[in-house]
Amino acid sequence: MRISFMGAGRVAHHLAHVLSQHHKIVQIYSRTLATAQTLAAQVKATATMNIEELNPEIDLVIIAVSDQAIASIISNVHQQLPHVLIVHTSGSTDIEVLAQIHARAGVFYPLQTFSLERQINWSDTPIFVEAKSEDDLVLLAELANQLSSHIYSYTSAQRLSLHLAAVFACNFSNYCYDMAKQIVDAQHVDFSLLYPLILETANKVLNNDPKQMQTGPAMRGDQNILNMHEQMLQKAQREDLKNIYQLMSQQILQSHATQS
Amino acid sequence: MRISFMGAGRVAHHLAHVLSQHHKIVQIYSRTLATAQTLAAQVKATATMNIEELNPEIDLVIIAVSDQAIASIISNVHQQLPHVLIVHTSGSTDIEVLAQIHARAGVFYPLQTFSLERQINWSDTPIFVEAKSEDDLVLLAELANQLSSHIYSYTSAQRLSLHLAAVFACNFSNYCYDMAKQIVDAQHVDFSLLYPLILETANKVLNNDPKQMQTGPAMRGDQNILNMHEQMLQKAQREDLKNIYQLMSQQILQSHATQS
Repeated sequence: MRISFMGAGRVAHHLAHVLSQHHKIVQIYSRTLATAQTLAAQVKATATMNIEELNPEIDLVIIAVSDQAIASIISNVHQQLPHVLIVHTSGSTDIEVLAQIHARAGVFYPLQTFSLERQINWSDTPIFVEAKSEDDLVLLAELANQLSSHIYSYTSAQRLSLHLAAVFACNFSNYCYDMAKQIVDAQHVDFSLLYPLILETANKVLNNDPKQMQTGPAMRGDQNILNMHEQMLQKAQREDLKNIYQLMSQQILQSHATQS
Repeated sequence: MRISFMGAGRVAHHLAHVLSQHHKIVQIYSRTLATAQTLAAQVKATATMNIEELNPEIDLVIIAVSDQAIASIISNVHQQLPHVLIVHTSGSTDIEVLAQIHARAGVFYPLQTFSLERQINWSDTPIFVEAKSEDDLVLLAELANQLSSHIYSYTSAQRLSLHLAAVFACNFSNYCYDMAKQIVDAQHVDFSLLYPLILETANKVLNNDPKQMQTGPAMRGDQNILNMHEQMLQKAQREDLKNIYQLMSQQILQSHATQS
């Protein structure tokens, strides 16, 4: 297949790299030419910052831009390439955002967190595909199958709830790590001491219900420790961390009090 | 060494099991005899629910009870065993809670999350030791060294900040997994789809600053998605999840807005 990308951010970067092993990456579009050029050079594509310059000789356009930019970009791409299959890669954007403008619309959503610093383990990454036509769905499923053995045909509503869950499981747990690091940094204690705990906490829930795996002072209803921790955060003038501590503890406490 | 345990919960369970490989576990005390008996049978010790029955022919008592019970238990154990080294296993309890009553006081704190369902990887688990005398500190460090290659002599204040950080890195991230599971469960979507994401998120921060690894709509300042997610939680009548979503997103947003 001949594939072009709209966007040159983290998702575009990882997808273009892995797809370039099996397919021809034709063009990388970005509003900033330098960004497009960096990725284009890596995957032997050409770079452009003008949608009017999009090469029509392609089989697939992958829109990998921020969710809020998808709606505006699809109109312009549709005018250039009215008959090409166009997908977005967003967990929270309905396929209809594309389909109301462009008939051959689809979704290609890899459920993963992408950083430029990290390689992606594609074979384990679930990919959710959706398309307005059966033929395009087959095409996307075949493409996804070259990357991963976990391909799912999900509706936009199901994808939406997965993405919301992913915000809790990934973005918020990462922010918990961030807060933990800020706490030990302030005492000149090495964050790496928490690595085994972080890994064990994550590995635990791969085989067990997280609710059953809950530990800590709030789960035990240990009010002395809860008060002491809040006072520590108060004394350190970390109202932000204290607010999170209180809200999380209160909910864990309630959820495990009603359970027993 | 001849070692007795006060408490038969998760920490006592795992410590008694691993220490029984090198040492004689003499007695397991618990307020409920059946609990003490279960663990005692596993590590070939005797069980008791009377502190007056504690065998004085021992080298070490490990208090592994809830933090709020430590202060009351130490008085009674001290009366029975005034000259034996007594340690607690708590991250957030000052050594002085023991030392003001008992001269040979110490701390033996493994920084890990303990579930009965899981084996502990002891060799990677950091253990923090503290003692009122140099001799006892050496003794505890040697004991810890048999379990782990990561032994640290930390003050109670340093241990306290580590434990507070552990609540964020472990207890709160686990609650994030729990909330994610509740969201997908409500849509009959399989929680296991999030496993690769959970693992990648944890593995990422082992080599990188979590702040640099932050992803998601709040980090990108994507107000459309933030509003949509809040409406989804509102519609599902999950005020609890919505409150967490708002507070976390607001702090991630602020923390990354001031950065750029």
